[in-house]
Amino acid sequence: MNQAVILVSGGMDSCVTAAIARSYGYQLLFLHLNYGQRTEKRELKAFRDLAEYYDVVEGNQLVVSIEHLAKIGGSSLTDDRIPVTKANLENTAIPTSYVPFRNAHILSIAVSWAETVGAERIFIGAVYEDSSGYPDCRPEYYEAFNEVIRLGTARGEIRIETPIIHMSKEAIILKGAELGAPLHLTWSCYQNEDMACGVCDSCALRLRGFQKAGMEDPIPYLTRPDYQ
Amino acid sequence: MNQAVILVSGGMDSCVTAAIARSYGYQLLFLHLNYGQRTEKRELKAFRDLAEYYDVVEGNQLVVSIEHLAKIGGSSLTDDRIPVTKANLENTAIPTSYVPFRNAHILSIAVSWAETVGAERIFIGAVYEDSSGYPDCRPEYYEAFNEVIRLGTARGEIRIETPIIHMSKEAIILKGAELGAPLHLTWSCYQNEDMACGVCDSCALRLRGFQKAGMEDPIPYLTRPDYQ
Repeated sequence: MNQAVILVSGGMDSCVTAAIARSYGYQLLFLHLNYGQRTEKRELKAFRDLAEYYDVVEGNQLVVSIEHLAKIGGSSLTDDRIPVTKANLENTAIPTSYVPFRNAHILSIAVSWAETVGAERIFIGAVYEDSSGYPDCRPEYYEAFNEVIRLGTARGEIRIETPIIHMSKEAIILKGAELGAPLHLTWSCYQNEDMACGVCDSCALRLRGFQKAGMEDPIPYLTRPDYQ
Repeated sequence: MNQAVILVSGGMDSCVTAAIARSYGYQLLFLHLNYGQRTEKRELKAFRDLAEYYDVVEGNQLVVSIEHLAKIGGSSLTDDRIPVTKANLENTAIPTSYVPFRNAHILSIAVSWAETVGAERIFIGAVYEDSSGYPDCRPEYYEAFNEVIRLGTARGEIRIETPIIHMSKEAIILKGAELGAPLHLTWSCYQNEDMACGVCDSCALRLRGFQKAGMEDPIPYLTRPDYQ
């Protein structure tokens, strides 16, 4: 059975990505990154819950701290002095939650792990729709990174897969429902850890997706504005 | 004055690379990575000595731990159970000191820092001659990484420079001498921290370079075999 490293933040996109990788027949290895974000504890709980759901044994789970990114700074996710941006789904400027070049760190760890254990694929739930502000969510970014992997690893066959990159949030939710993905175990809010705030960028995208899909989001919210 | 992030391991190549970046007129920012290697203390001392020599103030120095790579394993630099390979300069197999995909981690940190502080260049002392076993020392690897930077950063003008990539160790030493680089402050040995062992891959490459250049290596060695 071929192995795949799945980047599991604990959010909905990574949950559906794991479900897709499993449906392809891969044995799943779960990788979670702690980069000192506000809601890390809650995200880690979601990661563990998803690992349990998908029978990923402890030896196939890896949690790595990249809190050194906080030292480098420049983001509201890691710097308490910068307020989290309120949702503005029309705004195409770089959001304050942007950590410069963050995905390269995450992918590098995934590649090092994949090469060490002999996994041949890395699955990441990047979504192009979200990429207005995040330059490293675009398909061409992952294509370029695959070239770096090809040139920079001893075993050249490792590749990144981005199976939901062209899906809308609505499509991701419907795909998750189709595959029986446990969306009730996921966490997306950038602001809170007990009840999702419902108003940060991440909550807004998620709630709008469920509303468009005509489904009820199974996690608790402080408020559920109408985003349609 | 434009800023450049210099990757300073504390070795000879990074010292000469810093000298070259300074000669281009850049204000230098020094970045050092601790990845849990055996000789980290001695390398960090070399880093601080070089920073002092080049008047790099503390605010322009960054030391980042990537010891999480040790958790991923697979290398004699981070895993005490794997012995360091004795020098065999004819051997083209992957050396046991290889950390899978290590340079991508280092470059990612450099890019995040460069984007945060507004530096436009990243200088790394990668050397193609050393690259027989390390796939991520080849020029095409850095070209591919520059494409990832272009696609993955908000400010697209950050670029990696590899000014010594086509130089032999002999040429690097001669270039360092020409620019007055403080080679006596550098450390290269993978094995020891007080007296360089003289027999590990890194010592062998360094000593052979000095021997070919007809110069005396100013650092202390336990033994100085003839590598010519």
